[in-house]
Amino acid sequence: MATVKLMTDQEAEAIPAVKAVFDEIRAARKSDFINNFWRGLAHDPAQLARIWGQIKAIMGAPGALDPLTRELIYIAVSTANGCSYCIHSHTAAARAKGMTGAQHAELVAIIGLAGQTNHLATALQIPVDPEFQVK
Amino acid sequence: MATVKLMTDQEAEAIPAVKAVFDEIRAARKSDFINNFWRGLAHDPAQLARIWGQIKAIMGAPGALDPLTRELIYIAVSTANGCSYCIHSHTAAARAKGMTGAQHAELVAIIGLAGQTNHLATALQIPVDPEFQVK
Amino acid sequence: MATVKLMTDQEAEAIPAVKAVFDEIRAARKSDFINNFWRGLAHDPAQLARIWGQIKAIMGAPGALDPLTRELIYIAVSTANGCSYCIHSHTAAARAKGMTGAQHAELVAIIGLAGQTNHLATALQIPVDPEFQVK
Amino acid sequence: MATVKLMTDQEAEAIPAVKAVFDEIRAARKSDFINNFWRGLAHDPAQLARIWGQIKAIMGAPGALDPLTRELIYIAVSTANGCSYCIHSHTAAARAKGMTGAQHAELVAIIGLAGQTNHLATALQIPVDPEFQVK
Amino acid sequence: MATVKLMTDQEAEAIPAVKAVFDEIRAARKSDFINNFWRGLAHDPAQLARIWGQIKAIMGAPGALDPLTRELIYIAVSTANGCSYCIHSHTAAARAKGMTGAQHAELVAIIGLAGQTNHLATALQIPVDPEFQVK
Amino acid sequence: MATVKLMTDQEAEAIPAVKAVFDEIRAARKSDFINNFWRGLAHDPAQLARIWGQIKAIMGAPGALDPLTRELIYIAVSTANGCSYCIHSHTAAARAKGMTGAQHAELVAIIGLAGQTNHLATALQIPVDPEFQVK
Repeated sequence: MATVKLMTDQEAEAIPAVKAVFDEIRAARKSDFINNFWRGLAHDPAQLARIWGQIKAIMGAPGALDPLTRELIYIAVSTANGCSYCIHSHTAAARAKGMTGAQHAELVAIIGLAGQTNHLATALQIPVDPEFQVK
Repeated sequence: MATVKLMTDQEAEAIPAVKAVFDEIRAARKSDFINNFWRGLAHDPAQLARIWGQIKAIMGAPGALDPLTRELIYIAVSTANGCSYCIHSHTAAARAKGMTGAQHAELVAIIGLAGQTNHLATALQIPVDPEFQVK
Repeated sequence: MATVKLMTDQEAEAIPAVKAVFDEIRAARKSDFINNFWRGLAHDPAQLARIWGQIKAIMGAPGALDPLTRELIYIAVSTANGCSYCIHSHTAAARAKGMTGAQHAELVAIIGLAGQTNHLATALQIPVDPEFQVK
Repeated sequence: MATVKLMTDQEAEAIPAVKAVFDEIRAARKSDFINNFWRGLAHDPAQLARIWGQIKAIMGAPGALDPLTRELIYIAVSTANGCSYCIHSHTAAARAKGMTGAQHAELVAIIGLAGQTNHLATALQIPVDPEFQVK
Repeated sequence: MATVKLMTDQEAEAIPAVKAVFDEIRAARKSDFINNFWRGLAHDPAQLARIWGQIKAIMGAPGALDPLTRELIYIAVSTANGCSYCIHSHTAAARAKGMTGAQHAELVAIIGLAGQTNHLATALQIPVDPEFQVK
Repeated sequence: MATVKLMTDQEAEAIPAVKAVFDEIRAARKSDFINNFWRGLAHDPAQLARIWGQIKAIMGAPGALDPLTRELIYIAVSTANGCSYCIHSHTAAARAKGMTGAQHAELVAIIGLAGQTNHLATALQIPVDPEFQVK
């Protein structure tokens, strides 16, 4: 159960600032489906617009990383942070962008290995090598 | 400061199981440089071999994800886990594999955005949409 | 499902050290409701008393921060730690202490922004400015 | 050491999009001091503007929570996330906004107590009480 | 719900590399029960073998720590990482290896106390005493 | 650098509630050394007493787990939480209580393995097996 009520389409229709973002999400995704994350955020229309604006700019605009790689990075962060909702939503998004079963398996293996070596380096408090300094 | 002594080359030479892994790392990387992580792990030669074996298999073998993408995922996990050593070593590794400044900037922006939406979804305890179920 | 059995009122009545804490909680809250957290802790009566004692001293005694601000801080930590139970119980407690929808929305936005800039500062490994040193 | 070079004032002057944000920060804070966080972000001017825009909107605009309470929440999240830079910068910011030693001590005690009960609720996997459901 | 399908026994039987690991797990545990973790990993047979190989080597081989102590450490890490699945599976494993209710209660109390002092030391950014340096 | 001043012995002598705890710590440890953690906490004498009281009760009293095992659990939590100070202080404490190099190596390997499988179970969102339910 959520700590806020999830906004229904009927409620969203009545708040122009929310309706505007929901309309944009539907247009961008060419789908009528609005997932729960946006319905939870919608009680704060300014925040809803800020988050959607960033998603468009960081995940949607052309750039130096392809759209699938961006989703893999998103899943990696969400896993390390233990955000169940985000793992589900971005794994689904990655699949929609073409992630194969083999790519998912490699992603998961890298996440697990990083989790392991992160813990090892932290337990041993390994000092950073001066060779890693950015030039 | 580390919680173990970092093994010197002279000490490593005297332990065949450690020398074998250090030799492999040097050959694989075509460099004489052994970074501190391995020098901290070397007191447990079996663990040293296990971790190096996984690095080879998961980060080094041909597969469905290219080597740079793998490093980006590694940096993402290490950042969310707050492993300073790992962030430095894998950012250096990504640069060595061709990561550009623009790619790094996008990676960092995605990590930050995921950090934000992870916290939002968790604070609001958003329930997973049934639409995300794997088929 | 919990990793321990949740203690029922009937069981609690039979253990004086547990009954004493449950009675105190009920009196302090002017409510008969004992939430599951205390029922899980009750198998270790000394720990139950230690935790309740701290809650009284840190959350309940008059001091430099008002009761609602204390709950907002509690929700913030619980969110960053991903403790679903604690997010729910302290969001309910904050509402009981007068938290409005607008205050909750601002709290959630700050938590999200902090999550984002925490990840950015960590990914970039920004060194602490000497200006921040406590005087 | 950072994973990017920290941008100097001389470099920032030469990039209009960076100069514009640095100028705004200086005006808003009535101080010439630009802390390292912004110097690290400046290599991605669009991201620099996005983050500063959110700081202004979420931390700086009038609202339902006072400016000091916002900083306390920021410190709480940053501590749970282990972001050393952010703990230092926002503790300094809270002091600049009037945080007393007594308020800081209470904040730290609440953060510690939340850390403890978060771990207890998680170790025991306490199920959320239906009474906490948002109405 | 999982982000991958959990492999059934019938499917596992048809993949020799999976069947081999499942057979080993059953033999090692003297039980026909294969828990969901392995059924989720099984889609990547090489990873399944790597993880099982480590479990055998690190958790199962004779060494300097007894089997129950190893499980207590595993629960401690899993709690701090908020891994609900792992907390459940390793608490069950610890009970199967003889963990008493009193030992579980002490474990949980230590985990909670460490959670608290971790947050305190981080909030206060306490510098490491030179006396703790490894000799 | 800390976010509070570390209290000197001279300052502590002048505050009876602090002096009392410092004296107790010195007596319990049969050593004049007071580590920085206590010097940071000392500005809040009530909190200093609460934390020291818990350390005595949970780490120092006879019970179902031996003193070294308690320290290993403490290190495990502190590592997963990334608390550098706590990793150093409790690794030193464990060594003082007899932890051998072999025990430390096993501890670190278990912490690393748990880190890895925590990340795998979370990435795959493995559902808890009903067999793990506490009876």
